[in-house]
Amino acid sequence: MSFIEVSADSDFPIQNLPYGVFSTKDNPKPRIGVAIGSKILDLSSIKHLFDGTQMKDKQCVFDETTLNKFMSLGRSAWKETRERLQELLSKDCPTLKDNDQLRKQAFVEQNDAIMHLPAQIGDYTDFYCSREHATNVGTMFRGKENALNPNWLHLPVGYHGRASSVVISGTDIRRPNGQTCPDETKPPVFSNCKLLDIELEMAFFIGGQGNKQGEPIPMDQADDYIFGLVIMNDWSARDIQKWEYVPLGPFNAKNFGTTISPWIVTMDALKDALSNGPTQDPKPLPYLTQQEPSALNIDLQVTLKPAKSSTEHTICQSNLKYIYWSLKQMLVHHSSTGCNLRPGDLIGTGTISGPTPDSCGSLLEIIWRGTKPLQLDENTTRKFLEDGDTIKMTSVFIDCRVEEKLNKDCSCDCF
Amino acid sequence: MSFIEVSADSDFPIQNLPYGVFSTKDNPKPRIGVAIGSKILDLSSIKHLFDGTQMKDKQCVFDETTLNKFMSLGRSAWKETRERLQELLSKDCPTLKDNDQLRKQAFVEQNDAIMHLPAQIGDYTDFYCSREHATNVGTMFRGKENALNPNWLHLPVGYHGRASSVVISGTDIRRPNGQTCPDETKPPVFSNCKLLDIELEMAFFIGGQGNKQGEPIPMDQADDYIFGLVIMNDWSARDIQKWEYVPLGPFNAKNFGTTISPWIVTMDALKDALSNGPTQDPKPLPYLTQQEPSALNIDLQVTLKPAKSSTEHTICQSNLKYIYWSLKQMLVHHSSTGCNLRPGDLIGTGTISGPTPDSCGSLLEIIWRGTKPLQLDENTTRKFLEDGDTIKMTSVFIDCRVEEKLNKDCSCDCF
Ligand SMILES: [Ca+2]
Ligand SMILES: [Ca+2]
Ligand SMILES: [Mg+2]
Ligand SMILES: [Mg+2]
Ligand code: NI
Repeated sequence: MSFIEVSADSDFPIQNLPYGVFSTKDNPKPRIGVAIGSKILDLSSIKHLFDGTQMKDKQCVFDETTLNKFMSLGRSAWKETRERLQELLSKDCPTLKDNDQLRKQAFVEQNDAIMHLPAQIGDYTDFYCSREHATNVGTMFRGKENALNPNWLHLPVGYHGRASSVVISGTDIRRPNGQTCPDETKPPVFSNCKLLDIELEMAFFIGGQGNKQGEPIPMDQADDYIFGLVIMNDWSARDIQKWEYVPLGPFNAKNFGTTISPWIVTMDALKDALSNGPTQDPKPLPYLTQQEPSALNIDLQVTLKPAKSSTEHTICQSNLKYIYWSLKQMLVHHSSTGCNLRPGDLIGTGTISGPTPDSCGSLLEIIWRGTKPLQLDENTTRKFLEDGDTIKMTSVFIDCRVEEKLNKDCSCDCF
Repeated sequence: MSFIEVSADSDFPIQNLPYGVFSTKDNPKPRIGVAIGSKILDLSSIKHLFDGTQMKDKQCVFDETTLNKFMSLGRSAWKETRERLQELLSKDCPTLKDNDQLRKQAFVEQNDAIMHLPAQIGDYTDFYCSREHATNVGTMFRGKENALNPNWLHLPVGYHGRASSVVISGTDIRRPNGQTCPDETKPPVFSNCKLLDIELEMAFFIGGQGNKQGEPIPMDQADDYIFGLVIMNDWSARDIQKWEYVPLGPFNAKNFGTTISPWIVTMDALKDALSNGPTQDPKPLPYLTQQEPSALNIDLQVTLKPAKSSTEHTICQSNLKYIYWSLKQMLVHHSSTGCNLRPGDLIGTGTISGPTPDSCGSLLEIIWRGTKPLQLDENTTRKFLEDGDTIKMTSVFIDCRVEEKLNKDCSCDCF
């Protein structure tokens, strides 16, 4: 138990302790914090308290404006920091609890904080690891027999995404314009996106010093490179995507914005969520073979609230454990050619769809390419996003809200 | 004429003045320099001489270890700096010429310098803008009738690449391992790449402050965002690419390394190379319409020298002017959905193939998928790269050498 009051329904009990970067009106310098209850513990103001063997010479990482340096320190440092934080926040430890001046400096109300991107993202990669999502999309576009491409069960399919446009909740996103070809017997047009979609994903940040170029990461070291997880909304312009993506993949359909939640939940906090994933058949090649359970049992939920409604309609209930390829398999495959991963790089899972119709992670699947409009209530249906819709993505520990306000200005909030 | 001797065949006359980042044994701090003849002018040691209206308050950009800040200053600052450099290096200006101590500090022999990546590359994008290259590849894989995909003549097709593995010449590149499916009736295998290829490209660095997310760059402002050009070898593992690329595009086939030349030739230095590009029919949509000549007449050449030979065989003579879509059209299309471009971002043209068989920019095309092995001399043929092959990519101003030495260690030199 913490001496900081944590309500029963809080995303931020002492078992979580996710990392983020925040600033305040009084102090506009971005700094590293940990969420606890409704507060943020400012690590820059208590860095001197991290005096264990791993951290005592590395306290300066908490003076940084991003988490990259802390991420680069590796698992032993993360573990020591987490244990020290749980100690400092516990009811029985006087260091912070009984030091009024330090407490005043060190705690900020989340309501008073402005959140920032937690890391400088060198590269952002997005995978396509839900078998159900790939099968749904494949069935819609190629029929049931050819739903999965021949490579899909042999490797985690992924593509490089755009790092510059990854933002945290609260950053405005504009409905994009782009080139589309609504009628393929006619020339293409340039207009605003008509088929704006969400993709429910989670994404992990790379930690550790990173592998050298030319030196793949073997499976038995993969854990050392995974710092923690965020929820991600991979905004997708379906009409742009359909016209552009052959043969080099999605480009403008995805590069206008990707929203992540500001708090990174560490792998240490998610230990109890480890579980067995889907059976992999055919057996993966040796470089992709993992022994221990590597799936994560994390419930995920998406709600949609139309502009004029006060009801949040649940449109998706999914779970991270549904994804076919594990985070470690994505990481190992990514580096298998010698591609160097750096601390702060972001790797998305792809849309997390489950086995049932109510667990589809994108509107494209929920409405089955337009054939099954979503009935929200008596008078309201949805195909793709409409102006004013509020989308909220939630898990046990992470809460993500994505809000569209105007035709041309979509504001996104995740928290 | 410069007071620095410049041999007639030098890539670096006073009309060129490309920017790079270098260090020396004596001074390991990377710093910004300009190539002139066989020397480098160290801008950090003469920054006080940039006293024009644009630069006098911005001299600190020359203390940086990358060009990003200088790139961000914009066209007026680049122009003023170039003019001042030409003045300072001219025979008639005593400032540097007659100051022995400053000269000694300010000039370094290129032979004594270690070159570094010239910018921190936030994002790297690769396009596919040569009609001849796209037609060749399309014909090989889909037949002559379906060679160009329906979208190709309407938009510059591109994809996001891997920024972390962009290196300059001289950095070792290892022949990658990867998953391939040599016989599609059997399961895939994991092995070293058997079909390692080159792609002759040029790439431009983004300058200016960058556009805000959600605010596309209009064509009439595109020039403000293009800082300068390098030669690029987009290493490509064809066997990995073939197996993985459907439906999300090339990933591991490209992410193990991309080599660029260390000197960035500015657009001001390339003014005389401006020319008309290929006629665009159908007419591009209004957002992609450009009025003035936007192609660049830059001769490019690729040679291959087998390990045991002393002869450099010319295997490709091409020209940047062959590409169908201009640099400005790539830039405008890239940002059309509101994707934000940042100073230091790198954008490649795609393989630059011309209309004749001797102007193909990749081995895949030169050997026509293996059916026409390249006869280098009586006893030597080539399909894809073999260990010990030395590849050199050359233009008037930029010289790029790519060298493979061993099965597992490919060293690449560009200068
Ligand atoms: Ca996605
Ligand atoms: Ca390429
Ligand atoms: Mg996106
Ligand atoms: Mg490459
Ligand atoms: Ni990137």
